[in-house]
Amino acid sequence: MFFASDNGAPAIPEALAALVEANAGGALGYGNDPWTRRAQEAVRAVLEAPEATVHFVTTGTAANSLALASLTPPWGAVFCHEDAHVQMDECGAPEFFTGGAKLIGLPGDAGRIAPDTLRAALAGDSGVHSVQPACLTLTTVTEAGTLYTLAQIAELAGIAHEAGLKVHLDGARLANALAATGASPADMTWRAGVDALSFGGTKNGLMGVEAVVIFDPAKGRELELRRKRAGHLASKMRYLSAQVPPWLEGGRWLDLAAHANAMAARLAEGLAARGARFLHPVEANMIFAAWPAGTHARLKAAGAVYYDWAPPGPGEEAARLVASWATTAAEVDAFLAAL
Amino acid sequence: MFFASDNGAPAIPEALAALVEANAGGALGYGNDPWTRRAQEAVRAVLEAPEATVHFVTTGTAANSLALASLTPPWGAVFCHEDAHVQMDECGAPEFFTGGAKLIGLPGDAGRIAPDTLRAALAGDSGVHSVQPACLTLTTVTEAGTLYTLAQIAELAGIAHEAGLKVHLDGARLANALAATGASPADMTWRAGVDALSFGGTKNGLMGVEAVVIFDPAKGRELELRRKRAGHLASKMRYLSAQVPPWLEGGRWLDLAAHANAMAARLAEGLAARGARFLHPVEANMIFAAWPAGTHARLKAAGAVYYDWAPPGPGEEAARLVASWATTAAEVDAFLAAL
Amino acid sequence: MFFASDNGAPAIPEALAALVEANAGGALGYGNDPWTRRAQEAVRAVLEAPEATVHFVTTGTAANSLALASLTPPWGAVFCHEDAHVQMDECGAPEFFTGGAKLIGLPGDAGRIAPDTLRAALAGDSGVHSVQPACLTLTTVTEAGTLYTLAQIAELAGIAHEAGLKVHLDGARLANALAATGASPADMTWRAGVDALSFGGTKNGLMGVEAVVIFDPAKGRELELRRKRAGHLASKMRYLSAQVPPWLEGGRWLDLAAHANAMAARLAEGLAARGARFLHPVEANMIFAAWPAGTHARLKAAGAVYYDWAPPGPGEEAARLVASWATTAAEVDAFLAAL
Amino acid sequence: MFFASDNGAPAIPEALAALVEANAGGALGYGNDPWTRRAQEAVRAVLEAPEATVHFVTTGTAANSLALASLTPPWGAVFCHEDAHVQMDECGAPEFFTGGAKLIGLPGDAGRIAPDTLRAALAGDSGVHSVQPACLTLTTVTEAGTLYTLAQIAELAGIAHEAGLKVHLDGARLANALAATGASPADMTWRAGVDALSFGGTKNGLMGVEAVVIFDPAKGRELELRRKRAGHLASKMRYLSAQVPPWLEGGRWLDLAAHANAMAARLAEGLAARGARFLHPVEANMIFAAWPAGTHARLKAAGAVYYDWAPPGPGEEAARLVASWATTAAEVDAFLAAL
Repeated sequence: MFFASDNGAPAIPEALAALVEANAGGALGYGNDPWTRRAQEAVRAVLEAPEATVHFVTTGTAANSLALASLTPPWGAVFCHEDAHVQMDECGAPEFFTGGAKLIGLPGDAGRIAPDTLRAALAGDSGVHSVQPACLTLTTVTEAGTLYTLAQIAELAGIAHEAGLKVHLDGARLANALAATGASPADMTWRAGVDALSFGGTKNGLMGVEAVVIFDPAKGRELELRRKRAGHLASKMRYLSAQVPPWLEGGRWLDLAAHANAMAARLAEGLAARGARFLHPVEANMIFAAWPAGTHARLKAAGAVYYDWAPPGPGEEAARLVASWATTAAEVDAFLAAL
Repeated sequence: MFFASDNGAPAIPEALAALVEANAGGALGYGNDPWTRRAQEAVRAVLEAPEATVHFVTTGTAANSLALASLTPPWGAVFCHEDAHVQMDECGAPEFFTGGAKLIGLPGDAGRIAPDTLRAALAGDSGVHSVQPACLTLTTVTEAGTLYTLAQIAELAGIAHEAGLKVHLDGARLANALAATGASPADMTWRAGVDALSFGGTKNGLMGVEAVVIFDPAKGRELELRRKRAGHLASKMRYLSAQVPPWLEGGRWLDLAAHANAMAARLAEGLAARGARFLHPVEANMIFAAWPAGTHARLKAAGAVYYDWAPPGPGEEAARLVASWATTAAEVDAFLAAL
Repeated sequence: MFFASDNGAPAIPEALAALVEANAGGALGYGNDPWTRRAQEAVRAVLEAPEATVHFVTTGTAANSLALASLTPPWGAVFCHEDAHVQMDECGAPEFFTGGAKLIGLPGDAGRIAPDTLRAALAGDSGVHSVQPACLTLTTVTEAGTLYTLAQIAELAGIAHEAGLKVHLDGARLANALAATGASPADMTWRAGVDALSFGGTKNGLMGVEAVVIFDPAKGRELELRRKRAGHLASKMRYLSAQVPPWLEGGRWLDLAAHANAMAARLAEGLAARGARFLHPVEANMIFAAWPAGTHARLKAAGAVYYDWAPPGPGEEAARLVASWATTAAEVDAFLAAL
Repeated sequence: MFFASDNGAPAIPEALAALVEANAGGALGYGNDPWTRRAQEAVRAVLEAPEATVHFVTTGTAANSLALASLTPPWGAVFCHEDAHVQMDECGAPEFFTGGAKLIGLPGDAGRIAPDTLRAALAGDSGVHSVQPACLTLTTVTEAGTLYTLAQIAELAGIAHEAGLKVHLDGARLANALAATGASPADMTWRAGVDALSFGGTKNGLMGVEAVVIFDPAKGRELELRRKRAGHLASKMRYLSAQVPPWLEGGRWLDLAAHANAMAARLAEGLAARGARFLHPVEANMIFAAWPAGTHARLKAAGAVYYDWAPPGPGEEAARLVASWATTAAEVDAFLAAL
């Protein structure tokens, strides 16, 4: 009954098998190896972006910060949702990597930025006394477990581009968003106006593998230098790269995400049937649920692992519950039974 | 015949086995897991430093830069050998992590800083117009493949401490230095005056695992925050940590390093017998050898992989050759035969 | 009819006279001169802070940023009012000087932070994933032209200190706040819990002179190094310093500020009599007034200089009007007549 | 007998008179005033660079660091003479402003970089592991008091440009170099290949006024933002700007520098006649002289003010002596008499 986070799930067997296979003989370091070339090709292929540059790193924070730094000068403003991971959960990494840019948190229901909110934030002139609007960063699946539609991403990216900003997508759970919407990776990213992507693998079955994808290849070299300078150029890169092709192959990554989403849906259905209410719509693999006070104790005694959330009202408790590729129907049902 | 670098060697089977074993069920992220606690304990134990804080990261550049940043203010000077990895091979990572400190490269034979050189560099007052001496960073095995004795480390650290500096040791190849000298890990580090250590695993059989070790526990929290902020706090930390105990257990890490050193000695002996000369004494697992022009072509045609080095004289070629835990006597002999 | 800003006023004649007097013969640079020592003593004397260190710079942005950087690590959070100058008008200078700290803008009526707002912002734990609360910065006269009482400053500083934060006061208009409240400089700063002060001269008759005052002398050396490193250590410091003693002497600086406040009061009274309404209480030398649309054109045609402000409602216009030491009653009356 | 530095000299009377004249009535801040426009025009005119952008700051460190930051990414290498002010006397300001670039100090006789030294430094490829050559910064008058010829500047700039670097000139004493060589400002700067110039006024009679001049106007906006963000955008800019036109007018600035050079020549002649020897050729307004031990005491007792320099040999003392626009022949002769 592990619902703490999808980054607490184990790695898929194929990833481990690929590691074992890659662990033979000497190989040049720092990505100058065949595994890395194949993995980069595989990412470009699923994104239908043959010119994109692909840079593997081990954490989402690194991926986000490197991407933002390549899009934002030190005097830039990065617009994000006020609850975004880059704003709340990265200990100022974007500020560190950009050389001190300012993140502007925008409010928005259910983790999503509304077009008018963005328009209002971009209205007016930016004189020399204030930071300069430089970048919009969106997240889908959002921090609230909700999704942007393709049209919403495209509209927000359009507003940003018109104002001269670049667009980043934090896709730590991109696979879950794709599986939930059925959209193609290309449609949800560069065709919708995304300039740089954090392409997440860790939360969907890999062992600590994310990719920064830069759709304008002219920026690729800068990203390589930023990555090295941040200590994120792995010498034994093959152990990151080798995991990627079997994970992407045949849509395996989307199947894993679809399973996680399905487990969350099963859990949500059961919760609803037992009278829980939801702080946000359940659209992918995350649930924010409220239930009567006293429930936490019962669930945890039964062995459930998850994060408590701020209670929305008196007499209530709340929880964040995340399903992963490894969540089983039996786990879900045991949780519901314990409830 | 792979002599390009010890970071090009595969991982030891025990590391992979540990990964497979750790890959079961859910686990809290970011190091809040039993594997990480055990690995930290294991590092503290081999260092006989029960109070030290231990922070795992995936690259040596990250380990060095985080350690230096915790010892050096932005207006500090970091004294290092002019060929040190931090100065030449990290794309300015120490400057990035410290917020713009200045590295002062000191000359020195065979990769080592001489005490008088350090004393001279520290002589005189530092007014407000210049950066302030803050840190000494040493490397052993050095960039030239040589070693510091315990007495040399202690003398340099003593000079540094007397002048108010902190001392960092880049131990990317610490195991090779320990195996070659027979010194204990404690004697070569904190007992010799080292305040922070980059404890290398990647070049000695792990899959991308280094530890920053801070001997003053009061600085540990700062290191945690710096690591997170730099995107180096792995969510699935267990896959780093799990590799460490079996690698350290029973002195396995020192045996691996001793083997690498022995293979280098065997290679050096054969090279000497065939008339090669050495740019630096061969003291651990790295060889800098010079031989007649034309030799590269012959060796590479035979399948040898290594880095060319700047030719020391006319009619000569030079090479850097690195042996690893995975180098076999047969590989060495084949290389010598091809020569 | 110049009401654009108090930094648009000329310098007081005594400042110019002091420059002329200081302009004789050679003098050692970088503050090693008798004028600087006298000026530092004069600042310490008015603050009744004989141990404080005093560092002159030419801009308020430099003063604020240097002070904040000395109180905040790169991973720190700086709490400020959401309209504060450091947040809105310094192009990210605090982020630059601190190495990427995060400013957290708090809402608050009339430019003031309420104690409960601060308490709520400081509630909860700060894990390693988020920036660490480090500093509270207050401004008085606030951006809205209002004042904090001594009790309010002390309460906010107390909340901050209890949570382990340091406290900075942006005193670009400190003299106006002192003149308006009758408080002593010591009472409004260190006795109320202020750890570092931006002590403003430029907006009150000097030619570009601000002082950073650090009440904990142990931090003084760091400030000196930060100032040099930021290019704010003036070689010909005497031309800053010489202006200070005649400005402080005999309470001249407070008289200048009292005059500015009086001119604002006269203007506010006249505005009220003519039906204008105020967006914020008029408590010092700044007025935020709303009047019927069409008024701007008439006033500007008559030669009034001031900044338009966002209209609070339909059919309205708004203005920011700032009085200075140089504002005359005749100017005020001419403005009112033009209205 | 003040020979400590030309930044210890007073300001020229015309600068003070201009301040007094500018000190009338209100003026918009931050350079939006007629004095600043006139001063920028005056600088562009003497440089014959109608498109250049001109940005006034108060210190040479700020001018150099802003210029370098606009030419160098955080992962860049800045090549300079190993004794350059940016390397030795700015407490790491270039590292701070650039976000952590690396300064590479090159050796060179008499403060000058030789073309072959630069070529050697730029030879070879820069892989992702090292900082990327980005900028060459030259200084004339050099730290050794010597000059570059126009041909030397052009040759070095040519080598730099060919390798893709930008070129900065630290012209803290540009007027002295121009007066000594008779070259035109345009010939010594942009026509010789200089991309950004620190145009010094402080050491030649102004009260703390330097200009950053950017010859590529496309970079001007970035410089404005960097200046603001560093706290170097003066609100009462008119007091900087007003000094510039009377100083430049009719070649006054070059006459002042020529006088300083002439006083240095007079002093050097007298020193030579009295048996002193020179550590570097005396080519502008700085002298590095060696004389028998014991001389310092006699001179200082007589009231001479100057900086001691490292003694070149046993039984010797050395001094740095700087003449300024304010140095008189009588002062020089009194010094020689005391010797």
